[in-house]
Amino acid sequence: MREGKTKKVEEFGSEVVLHFKDDITAGDGAKHDVIKNKGSICCEITGRTMKYLEEKGIYTMFLEYLPPNKLRARKLSMIPLEVIVRFKKAGSFIRRYGGNDGEDLPAPLVEFTYKNDELHDPLMCVEHLEILNITTKKIAYVIMEEARKTATLLKEFFDQKGLELWDIKFEYGLDEEGKVCLGDEISPDTMRLRRSGQIFDKDVYRKDLGNPMEKYEAVLELCRSIDL
Amino acid sequence: MREGKTKKVEEFGSEVVLHFKDDITAGDGAKHDVIKNKGSICCEITGRTMKYLEEKGIYTMFLEYLPPNKLRARKLSMIPLEVIVRFKKAGSFIRRYGGNDGEDLPAPLVEFTYKNDELHDPLMCVEHLEILNITTKKIAYVIMEEARKTATLLKEFFDQKGLELWDIKFEYGLDEEGKVCLGDEISPDTMRLRRSGQIFDKDVYRKDLGNPMEKYEAVLELCRSIDL
Repeated sequence: MREGKTKKVEEFGSEVVLHFKDDITAGDGAKHDVIKNKGSICCEITGRTMKYLEEKGIYTMFLEYLPPNKLRARKLSMIPLEVIVRFKKAGSFIRRYGGNDGEDLPAPLVEFTYKNDELHDPLMCVEHLEILNITTKKIAYVIMEEARKTATLLKEFFDQKGLELWDIKFEYGLDEEGKVCLGDEISPDTMRLRRSGQIFDKDVYRKDLGNPMEKYEAVLELCRSIDL
Repeated sequence: MREGKTKKVEEFGSEVVLHFKDDITAGDGAKHDVIKNKGSICCEITGRTMKYLEEKGIYTMFLEYLPPNKLRARKLSMIPLEVIVRFKKAGSFIRRYGGNDGEDLPAPLVEFTYKNDELHDPLMCVEHLEILNITTKKIAYVIMEEARKTATLLKEFFDQKGLELWDIKFEYGLDEEGKVCLGDEISPDTMRLRRSGQIFDKDVYRKDLGNPMEKYEAVLELCRSIDL
């Protein structure tokens, strides 16, 4: 069983079971807490949103939600990248390029960062991915297109629920046939969700703005309109 | 007359005269000195290497060397990017992605960084250039190809002189017809040149390894094989 900061992965042949832990971290792991029910909330949100995406034609790892905090999923060979889709300026984008929190981008932007806490997840362009042997240009462009499409579908979903999706982070892997597949997690840990100034995502934790689970639960409630 | 950290630009219709100053800076301007003859050495190296490149079919700003420290050049509308071509790992590449000084890259890598001291020249991918309105994707790919070709020609030149070109920084502008043209400077300020462990570039200054001008003069001497 492999274990990461917020999940454990158990392998069963061509499938895995993901265990969502109650751990929450920020700042490349510098900040770390354990919050009751966080794992089950994020797990259920991931399951329901991936189900929604599958129905819209997106290929995801999702196979089955195993309450309270496990997912049965396709086994993927994960690519060590965070794939960020931004609709508005926030977080690391502003630290890099300036601008104001929540400022619109003229078009959705897809960014790759290298999953490496020691190097602080540095930005990578398509050229770096190939030269540093992380993935091919061809796969990078497929991921870029998939990420843009997937984020736009989720934005539409949350728009209907009255929440603004500012940005979202995906992780991708290759299935046994080498096909690009959405893996990891979709939850308030991995996206910025706002409603008229109110924060419904991990920034509540990053910025010490109270109990994040109240907001995570509100997001889960909205996602329960998706049948599992 | 506009003035930058190391050059002044005087406009005359569709031409400019660049004055190379004796200033040398490092660390986004945090380190700064004035070294006698530095301007004239960098100016003459720029003139001669750009002449060499023009003869090899590269479109550059160069029109005439005006001794000791001026160049007559095409007027360009400069794009605020540093375009770095890397043959080996060094400097900001290693700070971003790790690896060892002087380690070979499997192919020449072209990077764009945004010329902005306050933001510490952040890396930009082609997608950022377009979204932040810095230049179009089309121009970015033209620059990428030009930079790779130009750096490879300079690498060949220095190889013949017994110096290894590790990396080089270019700046590009658009001429009055909107054509991409190499501007700025080519000198030990803008490239890493090595010979069996010996440093012939601005790293002598960055790392306080003695009088950089001895090395800059040696580079100039090699470039004098190019007729002006």
